[in-house]
Amino acid sequence: MTLSGDLIIGGANVRGAAAAFSAINPANGNPMEPSFAGATKEQVEEATSLAWDAFPVYKETSLDDRARFLEAIAEGIVALGDDLVMRAIDETGLPRGRIEGERARTVGQLRLFAKEVRDGRFQELRFDPADTERRPVAKPDLRLRNVALGPVAVFGASNFPLAFSVAGGDTASALAAGCPVVVKAHSAHPGTSELVGRAVADAVAACGLPRGTFGLLFDAGFEVGQTLVADHRIRAVGFTGSRRGGTALMKIASERKQPIPVYAEMSSINPVILYPNALRSRGAEIGKSFASSLILGAGQFCTNPGLIIAVEGAGLDAFIGSAAAALSESQAQTMLTGGIFDAYCNGVARLSSSPSVSQVAAGKDGTPNQAAAALFETTAAAFLANPELQEEVFGASGLIVRCRDDEELRTVVGSLEGQLTIALHVDAGDIGAASPMISQLELLAGRLLVNGFGTGVEVSPAMVHGGPYPATSDGRSTSVGTLAIYRFLRPVSYQDFPIDLLPEPLKLF
Amino acid sequence: MTLSGDLIIGGANVRGAAAAFSAINPANGNPMEPSFAGATKEQVEEATSLAWDAFPVYKETSLDDRARFLEAIAEGIVALGDDLVMRAIDETGLPRGRIEGERARTVGQLRLFAKEVRDGRFQELRFDPADTERRPVAKPDLRLRNVALGPVAVFGASNFPLAFSVAGGDTASALAAGCPVVVKAHSAHPGTSELVGRAVADAVAACGLPRGTFGLLFDAGFEVGQTLVADHRIRAVGFTGSRRGGTALMKIASERKQPIPVYAEMSSINPVILYPNALRSRGAEIGKSFASSLILGAGQFCTNPGLIIAVEGAGLDAFIGSAAAALSESQAQTMLTGGIFDAYCNGVARLSSSPSVSQVAAGKDGTPNQAAAALFETTAAAFLANPELQEEVFGASGLIVRCRDDEELRTVVGSLEGQLTIALHVDAGDIGAASPMISQLELLAGRLLVNGFGTGVEVSPAMVHGGPYPATSDGRSTSVGTLAIYRFLRPVSYQDFPIDLLPEPLKLF
Repeated sequence: MTLSGDLIIGGANVRGAAAAFSAINPANGNPMEPSFAGATKEQVEEATSLAWDAFPVYKETSLDDRARFLEAIAEGIVALGDDLVMRAIDETGLPRGRIEGERARTVGQLRLFAKEVRDGRFQELRFDPADTERRPVAKPDLRLRNVALGPVAVFGASNFPLAFSVAGGDTASALAAGCPVVVKAHSAHPGTSELVGRAVADAVAACGLPRGTFGLLFDAGFEVGQTLVADHRIRAVGFTGSRRGGTALMKIASERKQPIPVYAEMSSINPVILYPNALRSRGAEIGKSFASSLILGAGQFCTNPGLIIAVEGAGLDAFIGSAAAALSESQAQTMLTGGIFDAYCNGVARLSSSPSVSQVAAGKDGTPNQAAAALFETTAAAFLANPELQEEVFGASGLIVRCRDDEELRTVVGSLEGQLTIALHVDAGDIGAASPMISQLELLAGRLLVNGFGTGVEVSPAMVHGGPYPATSDGRSTSVGTLAIYRFLRPVSYQDFPIDLLPEPLKLF
Repeated sequence: MTLSGDLIIGGANVRGAAAAFSAINPANGNPMEPSFAGATKEQVEEATSLAWDAFPVYKETSLDDRARFLEAIAEGIVALGDDLVMRAIDETGLPRGRIEGERARTVGQLRLFAKEVRDGRFQELRFDPADTERRPVAKPDLRLRNVALGPVAVFGASNFPLAFSVAGGDTASALAAGCPVVVKAHSAHPGTSELVGRAVADAVAACGLPRGTFGLLFDAGFEVGQTLVADHRIRAVGFTGSRRGGTALMKIASERKQPIPVYAEMSSINPVILYPNALRSRGAEIGKSFASSLILGAGQFCTNPGLIIAVEGAGLDAFIGSAAAALSESQAQTMLTGGIFDAYCNGVARLSSSPSVSQVAAGKDGTPNQAAAALFETTAAAFLANPELQEEVFGASGLIVRCRDDEELRTVVGSLEGQLTIALHVDAGDIGAASPMISQLELLAGRLLVNGFGTGVEVSPAMVHGGPYPATSDGRSTSVGTLAIYRFLRPVSYQDFPIDLLPEPLKLF
């Protein structure tokens, strides 16, 4: 399959008229063919105009047609075969197993949303029958359904070139809701983006949908994204990336003439709280699992366990000893981009040079762009006094907070910002101490887990991948799992409508 | 019942330590006893601290306990008897029938939410069972429930002294969701607010709930409200009022360290589109009903029909003639406050002096503070050229937009801002022309209605009282009806929790 480096606007390949850029293979630093040309402001507007034109038709597609479209995208991605896997490996430095797993997840996600669409419950159909006899005033006939918000801008994430990129969770849930999608591809994996984008565009054509239902835009910088979010035809935003990027988009969205919702997943250090009995009985074992989770995918997961909180003692020492041993043996891993590698190195250097932090382990060094794992520790008092220690270091870096006692541990937990996940490690004897904390932890994270780590996010109905600010911009939502569709819907009520004027799904009562 | 003029903090009457003010009887301009003392910053913080302390207990009350609390509030309001009705009449200038109707609605609303709480569906309980045999990785046990956001700040609305005030829709739905509430009373009806606030506080005590579950604050100005929305313990805001007030609160909320959702219902002119066949067969009749809806409650409804859009012709002339005749005969009505009366007069004067607008009817003049209805007309071209003609004039003022043809009518509709309601008047022969517009209208309003007017908002499961900005700050929500509870909830996922550690409702699977 030959890559064109073109934008996809209205289903067609269109050469971008702004500055061009190339993908860089992070494993060797070499630029890759072809060059991808960025979109101009006019090209962004062409894509959003077409999306706007497509919207009234697309939002009223039958549930079955929409489900079949999602399935066709899934089939198209599978049909890309090894071309897609190879390009993704080259653009991200991620190993084959990970890319294949992520492809399976992406395809499974599209099929899950197809099922959710067919099920139809997301429409939230409601009917309050009329009562003309009611006094003092008659009761009207009221029907309600959820309606799609409008065209959605989706930003591809660097760390999930498939599952959170062109046809990832945001796109799948927005399309499922009935919203056309314009994707701003992540500049780190443009070839992967083009391949998947072509699969989506082909599915649009094969299903006879309006050609503006999907668009794909490239950009060497930030202008395309900023233009998209400010565009009056865009009605919601899905974003996964840095806190700075996410808050910049929130600001643009809130200053529009008509503000729109931004669903930005931004930063999380995913605290892990270790309880005394669990530490005592299996501190070393937990330390080993922690190390595995910390270095998984070079630590480049939103749910990477970056913070350990525990009361001092022999159990914690065993945990640290075992985690340090495992991390010291760990090989350096290629990071997604040079920029991410540099940011990781800066974050680690910042912790290393902090007077209140000491390093307890370092992974093996590697070639350029390969990051070594790092584990640090500090005291609760220092952690509480230095809020910057809560800043995410994206990558395989963890910080252990030593607490004197249970009370200090609770103070540390009380100081935490919003998180995607919080994990507890408990034995039966810890339940009494952990139980009263659940109520507090619920307010801090979208997902709580016991005796595990947040890496590995199940795509299912009961999943929440979200959490209070700054984990995400909107703690009322999830970007993974079937609930994600509700981000792109709003309720509309129809009063005393003659049957002929009602939208199809509401005629059925 | 003697009024104290005190704040309610932690269930107790507390004298405010900031500037005091009195209610003014709008019918005669006289100040009324007692004086109400505003809350200081410290007193606001005392109320929010107590709400924060109450939250962990209150959010875990059993569904039945919470439902009984809502019912106890309803009973307490009924038990206030005529004292409440008289005070509300004196403070608002609204007639007895309206106040009694609104009391019934308020009490019914609390009981409806009690039913909704007992039903429990709002918890959105979900369960994905574990599958330890799954490969390549085992499937975890995942359970999900909705959790209350935290303490909510509610702003009483001037125009609904009961149904959208201290124990109105926002308070009822927030309490139903499990959120403590701190109310900033509207300064136009402080006595009514104190009476109802006492009923809520008594219900808190009678039900053995934490005393911070409810607080009531007064303020002569805006500081209490601003302090409340900025307070880190407040996690959501319910507001009904002006666009300026609502956007100011949105700004404060978005600039917090942790931004919070603001549900502000702000301004809407509730367009009414008249179709040719309906106009031809019953233009005069529709004109008469329109006049009744326009002057209902001196036009002081968020859903007041302020804009008529129609194609010129004999039918529209008949409509105008009949509406003008009815309005010319209409008596002036006392408005809620001197400020609202002044704003109404200014709005009407602005329309009167606009070169592109002409007045077609004026109601009878009254005593000071009594507003006369006003009806204006303009051309589609002038309406499109002067966006300020879309600004809400709160009160019984309407503007008719004359369109040359169907195409121009659609252009006018396309220029509209977000609305709470849009009404269509159609006969069977109009369905063909109206049908393709529904898809466009859905994007502009939270409620569409046929052959009626938006005044009269049913409190029921299929109601949406909301709409795209600037009708509200968040078009994904409704402030009336059972769906309103979802504004104050967020999903949380529990992974691999031992039964003993799970929140009660999730143990049941």
